[in-house]
Amino acid sequence: MSNPVQHSLSAPALKAAAAVSEDRLWQSLEAMAAIGGLGNGGVTRQALTPEDIAARALLIGWARQLGLEVSIDEAANLFLRRSGQEPQAPPVVAGSHMDSQPAGGRFDGIYGVLAAFEAMQALDDAGVATRRPIDVVAWTNEEGGRFERSCTGSSVWAGQSPLASFLDDIGSDGIRFADALAETLAATPDLPRRPAQWPACAYVEPHIEQGPVLERQGIDIAAVTGIQGVRWMRVEVEGVAGHAGTTPAAHRRDALQAAVRAITWLNGLMEDPKDLTRFTVGRVVVEPNSPNTIPQKVTFTIDFRHPDTAELKRRGSAIERVVTEAVKPCTARIVTTSEMNPTPFDGPVPALIEDAAAALGLRATRLASGAFHDALYAARVCPAGMLFIPCRKGVSHSPDEYSTPQQCAAGARVLAATVVELANRT
Amino acid sequence: MSNPVQHSLSAPALKAAAAVSEDRLWQSLEAMAAIGGLGNGGVTRQALTPEDIAARALLIGWARQLGLEVSIDEAANLFLRRSGQEPQAPPVVAGSHMDSQPAGGRFDGIYGVLAAFEAMQALDDAGVATRRPIDVVAWTNEEGGRFERSCTGSSVWAGQSPLASFLDDIGSDGIRFADALAETLAATPDLPRRPAQWPACAYVEPHIEQGPVLERQGIDIAAVTGIQGVRWMRVEVEGVAGHAGTTPAAHRRDALQAAVRAITWLNGLMEDPKDLTRFTVGRVVVEPNSPNTIPQKVTFTIDFRHPDTAELKRRGSAIERVVTEAVKPCTARIVTTSEMNPTPFDGPVPALIEDAAAALGLRATRLASGAFHDALYAARVCPAGMLFIPCRKGVSHSPDEYSTPQQCAAGARVLAATVVELANRT
Repeated sequence: MSNPVQHSLSAPALKAAAAVSEDRLWQSLEAMAAIGGLGNGGVTRQALTPEDIAARALLIGWARQLGLEVSIDEAANLFLRRSGQEPQAPPVVAGSHMDSQPAGGRFDGIYGVLAAFEAMQALDDAGVATRRPIDVVAWTNEEGGRFERSCTGSSVWAGQSPLASFLDDIGSDGIRFADALAETLAATPDLPRRPAQWPACAYVEPHIEQGPVLERQGIDIAAVTGIQGVRWMRVEVEGVAGHAGTTPAAHRRDALQAAVRAITWLNGLMEDPKDLTRFTVGRVVVEPNSPNTIPQKVTFTIDFRHPDTAELKRRGSAIERVVTEAVKPCTARIVTTSEMNPTPFDGPVPALIEDAAAALGLRATRLASGAFHDALYAARVCPAGMLFIPCRKGVSHSPDEYSTPQQCAAGARVLAATVVELANRT
Repeated sequence: MSNPVQHSLSAPALKAAAAVSEDRLWQSLEAMAAIGGLGNGGVTRQALTPEDIAARALLIGWARQLGLEVSIDEAANLFLRRSGQEPQAPPVVAGSHMDSQPAGGRFDGIYGVLAAFEAMQALDDAGVATRRPIDVVAWTNEEGGRFERSCTGSSVWAGQSPLASFLDDIGSDGIRFADALAETLAATPDLPRRPAQWPACAYVEPHIEQGPVLERQGIDIAAVTGIQGVRWMRVEVEGVAGHAGTTPAAHRRDALQAAVRAITWLNGLMEDPKDLTRFTVGRVVVEPNSPNTIPQKVTFTIDFRHPDTAELKRRGSAIERVVTEAVKPCTARIVTTSEMNPTPFDGPVPALIEDAAAALGLRATRLASGAFHDALYAARVCPAGMLFIPCRKGVSHSPDEYSTPQQCAAGARVLAATVVELANRT
């Protein structure tokens, strides 16, 4: 066996995990959910809004109570540093984002930040010192709900896109990104300004799964193996309009019927006994969209994801051929609107998460992330990984989003153990 | 043979047909197309607009030159009467409508009015007198483009809906039907007012086919056997929204995939080697219609038509069962939004049209009308029928609508012969 299972955790890692407080973590989640609370279990805490600013202030207050060193960078990424025995060593970074969807849930993003903060409290309570410093991070604008381009903070930090490229973006409320950012930075004028980029030793992001797999399989923790690759396409099917009452079937070039055939054939192409392939037609626009007119044009989107680059390429490159054949006698134009290869989480993090879960008696599995996360960008500059906890019915981006206090605490325990190992071993 | 072919036309009918002038008819079509001309071959001459009023004035002028007796009724249906040897006998009525779609063609509707008017000129030129009077009619608001409920004039005349029920309808331009009607009536204050309803001996409506059958088969004339029955339904498929990247196929209730299955299964139900069945899904609305969200709800329309009542009932009543089964694990709600049984053209008119076409050396066929026409209402109060002429590629409701001068004249010849036979024989 090339990969013997390693269940042994160091004593400090075990101590830190044991010191995680389910109650304290839950209360911090509840306190955060009160900011921008919607009264139905959901929250609105979009990036760089007054709610985001209030949430940041609450977190900063807690961090200072704990003696963490708070700083911020030009993209308003917020860092809470717990120093190490070697203060100059590249730190372990753990966290997620605080911003929510316009009508989002109480866990997506914020759970990762608060689980990391709870881990810091647990380390303190357990009297654990680490060799490397640990930075709890809250990235700016992961959701892309207000300012459309998502993962702003992490992609600036990872050197993928300069901050300047975001400044002129206009939010859904008409406000310029630069102005919203300036307002957020001005709310904490006393914070030391961190450089935009700096070396990290590893990145770990706890998150709710946003899918149903863990809950259905009764699993506590997923060690995320990477972020799926994605191909987004727009298919424009051109037919010929006609009178629904007078045009015989044999004479029709019905763009809707052609699109129905194309989607059916694509279902065949995307068949996958392993159920790793994600294929979604989420948007369909019919023209003229009149009940008694044969559709002249149908535009539909393809969202195709797969964790394996070869599969993504193989099936992805067959789409055009399948669609072109299926829509006959109509014609189709296929435009690729976004394309990203899978991002595997190479390095030690996924295995460490699995080990930690096993050592803590939790049921764990490996899973590829179907959604994008800040870890996608962090993985470009340091070893990265994510851990997922179950969420009810897989629901996310909704006030119905829910994970239990036990599930939240389990994730924080695995995180605490993982960051201690990363900060001491690597 | 129970139905021996009757090619014998009376001498007056043949003389009238021979006197039809292709040039004169074409010039009258061109003159009408100049009113509300769009510069691209199309016209806008919606019901009760200034363009409609101008077209009426032009027609009234021509009718007076020919010595026809012009009258109008409370629904602004316009009548041009050529008297008969028995002036009190219920007349033969021939014509169609003058209103167009918002951006319509130069033939739909107006062709039937001008073909009937050309027939009256031909009768004069041929010196043909008839026993019964003949009324050329231009019905009000057949299209339903401005005021949504179509066939207003003919349904009032046929006693199907009282005029009062239309008065409060609001046009696409915000104007009340009653006001537009009053304006139209006020434009011809000198016209005698005809009663709303009166007995007719028969009704004949010439029209372009609005379908491709005649052109493709090289046929000059269709004797229309009736108007297809129709079932309109709205299908609402309910699924569960989810993240396109994280929800495995096995856990999805994708309303769009369910709708695609439902439409595919319905295609099976509607299969028809005779190609008489008309099945169209013209409108599809997806919610939330976001590329990376599994569709939660899909609403689509069904437009199902068939000339045979039994078939309409048999297949129509199977729709709910087929859809309900196909959408599983989603659910569907099916609402019938409109239902009308086929209207057969009983009586002598279709056979007379066939006979006239044959006697004139034209290729004729029998065809059911896929579209609604004023004849649908006229058929409820007297023997009725329609004749179709070919139109290019079956295109209608479009500036590209086109029939040749020869095709137009052939229809007018058949009409002239038919009305003479109806006015003398019946």
